[in-house]
Amino acid sequence: MPEQSPFDLAEGDPFGPHNLPYGVFSTAAAPDRRRLGVRYGRHVLDLSALPSALPPVVRPPHAALLAAPTLNPLLAAGRTVWQEVRAAVRTAVTATEHRPALTPLFHPLDEVTLHLPFEVADYVDFYSSEHHATNVGRIFRPDGAALPPNWKHLPIGYHGRSGTVVVTGTPVVRPNGQRKVPTDAEPTFGPSGRLDIEAEVGFIVGAPSAHTEPVGLGAFRDHVFGVCLVNDWSARDIQAWEYLPLGPFLGKSFATSVSAWITPLDAFDEARTPPPARDFPLLPYLDDSAMEPGGFDIRIEVTVNGEHLSNPPFSAMYWTAAQQLAHMTVNGASLRTGDLFASGTVSGPEPDQLGCLLEITQGKGPYLQDGDEVTLAAWAPGPEGTRIGLGEVTGRVLPAPELGTVPAAAGAGAGSEATTTAPRDGT
Amino acid sequence: MPEQSPFDLAEGDPFGPHNLPYGVFSTAAAPDRRRLGVRYGRHVLDLSALPSALPPVVRPPHAALLAAPTLNPLLAAGRTVWQEVRAAVRTAVTATEHRPALTPLFHPLDEVTLHLPFEVADYVDFYSSEHHATNVGRIFRPDGAALPPNWKHLPIGYHGRSGTVVVTGTPVVRPNGQRKVPTDAEPTFGPSGRLDIEAEVGFIVGAPSAHTEPVGLGAFRDHVFGVCLVNDWSARDIQAWEYLPLGPFLGKSFATSVSAWITPLDAFDEARTPPPARDFPLLPYLDDSAMEPGGFDIRIEVTVNGEHLSNPPFSAMYWTAAQQLAHMTVNGASLRTGDLFASGTVSGPEPDQLGCLLEITQGKGPYLQDGDEVTLAAWAPGPEGTRIGLGEVTGRVLPAPELGTVPAAAGAGAGSEATTTAPRDGT
Repeated sequence: MPEQSPFDLAEGDPFGPHNLPYGVFSTAAAPDRRRLGVRYGRHVLDLSALPSALPPVVRPPHAALLAAPTLNPLLAAGRTVWQEVRAAVRTAVTATEHRPALTPLFHPLDEVTLHLPFEVADYVDFYSSEHHATNVGRIFRPDGAALPPNWKHLPIGYHGRSGTVVVTGTPVVRPNGQRKVPTDAEPTFGPSGRLDIEAEVGFIVGAPSAHTEPVGLGAFRDHVFGVCLVNDWSARDIQAWEYLPLGPFLGKSFATSVSAWITPLDAFDEARTPPPARDFPLLPYLDDSAMEPGGFDIRIEVTVNGEHLSNPPFSAMYWTAAQQLAHMTVNGASLRTGDLFASGTVSGPEPDQLGCLLEITQGKGPYLQDGDEVTLAAWAPGPEGTRIGLGEVTGRVLPAPELGTVPAAAGAGAGSEATTTAPRDGT
Repeated sequence: MPEQSPFDLAEGDPFGPHNLPYGVFSTAAAPDRRRLGVRYGRHVLDLSALPSALPPVVRPPHAALLAAPTLNPLLAAGRTVWQEVRAAVRTAVTATEHRPALTPLFHPLDEVTLHLPFEVADYVDFYSSEHHATNVGRIFRPDGAALPPNWKHLPIGYHGRSGTVVVTGTPVVRPNGQRKVPTDAEPTFGPSGRLDIEAEVGFIVGAPSAHTEPVGLGAFRDHVFGVCLVNDWSARDIQAWEYLPLGPFLGKSFATSVSAWITPLDAFDEARTPPPARDFPLLPYLDDSAMEPGGFDIRIEVTVNGEHLSNPPFSAMYWTAAQQLAHMTVNGASLRTGDLFASGTVSGPEPDQLGCLLEITQGKGPYLQDGDEVTLAAWAPGPEGTRIGLGEVTGRVLPAPELGTVPAAAGAGAGSEATTTAPRDGT
């Protein structure tokens, strides 16, 4: 098969000139050199080399930002810079006169290694699907109201662990932990038997905000750089035992997978859609009735081992990302470059639209088995009938560490020189 | 009054040669140059200048680490380096022959500006005082069991917001938010009327750990660099309305204050003390019965506007910091340099030993008023009858932003150029 020109996209390719998501890659020739790239079709355009390859008149500004090993400097630069860089990249991929100079800057996607594209500052996970929250409430609290009383007054959220956010493709090791199902008298220790996924959409903060100054709904586009998919892996048995009264902790903190590609927010202008009708009047800081539509028509597909599992519709979310951002900062909490906030599990009203196995199996399982590979993919409508693809998120489940290798107190001296007392085998 | 030599400490000074805590400071002459320093008595020793001021034979190694603007490079270097640097600093302050060369490196404490001494990676807050958890449970859930069923089986914790950890002295702006007390029909928006403190002890992770590899109880000293005080400011009315089912969020995320001084873990060897007797057998990964004592006899004093409020005893904590670390990583979650984990509110069994106003006032208030200044101070027994002081944590409460300045949706355009739609006056 002859090598395809990077400029010749397949019909309907969801990574065309209206998408242009950003990532970080390295090549086999320089594995330690992480560079910014833009995905175009099945190729990656080396952004670090772009400025010097173009004539000055169309050269993208901000070459120093593009030469960084993570997206963070570009994220921090703010919306005007984001727009200038995006315009230059679009010119680079669409203007035919630059093709000879640019062709060497493209790497086939299957020949590069993709890395976590940004350094995660704070990670917040919301709980903004009414369908998900209702379904989970019925399973976890069968004798109570499905939705807690605060649910329709504010977007419920909590902080997750930033340090274990990993890029797509990273294997996910089944966690050990304390588990107790209602029929157990005492908690036991061992591998989670209820390892689950949560299909979510994540938003990445670019421009920071000042501590003590709330960020209103109207400032959403000034702070949010882009969008990715998120798989918020969850160990339901660990979570159920630990989560009262302070929320999920070890049931979630072992791994959270994100896309390698961050699609700029502006790419989703055609996908804007009003959120569902609100059942309660909202307090002014959350009232988006006079704003541009805050929902996004992002259509997710979950597959397990290549087989279709479900199609969660992001347009069904009750709370929007702009409302989440306004709520998260209304107490004066600041935003930092690299903050990631995720939607919570995306579930729709139909049986084929559920975003986690807990819901799909009504709490009965089966959950994920060792070796299972889960993939989230998604697209949104773009201009002129095109599709805007989100970078997929995939991860394979590896077996839990053997119980004997989990460090126990007995025999471990206080002055042990090893960083961990019991290195694991097998991964 | 003649200027005191930095080497002449007051009798019983808790910042003597057995303490030597690390911080980051700048001077009026070079306000943008952040430097590492060690507190000695009422002075700060400029660590960045130390290597070149000493003869090679006693020169501290790792000059590059000491020239950094934050503690993070030193934290990451690991225990052997920590011990080498600490030994060199102790020589510098105790060996009389170097005094002429070293004297110019000391700055009076009241002439420097202190900064947040490390970049916070993940922040985890535990809930490890049985007295606190019992008291809070009785107030928040008067009809249920005071302690949740999991409490004595695992150290309950949750992730907090790293981006709003601030150094002592930073004013704390009263947060606005949604509040609903049981007698309200609907939530209202406005300044928290129940602003509280939580007196805690924090532990700072130095050496990171590998993702998927648990850190056992015996590896505590290999990963934990040092100790500070923490005031986990809490808005009880916001917290009470939001916290079910996913835990505290905006009721805590507006600010968390920490000491400017991080005392090395090794300084607390004399303060080691066994934790209280355990009421339940612990799972092996938490069983510290064969370990060095995991508790610390750190004696906290809380003052409000200079008046004594209480004396929370850290020795009364049910769960130790080593158990918290082992629990936090048993699912394979990694540690990063700069991770901060705090104990949860420290409360003892006596009325004078409670670490927050919620407990002290039995939920009835009064809580903090605008203008109140809260200070946490603490010491622990050191060698030879000395005291090891922890850096104090102080903060003054400033009024909430006026309601009219909190951005509302109405009138705020999607394309607003301002980073926030409504800058606040007054702070």
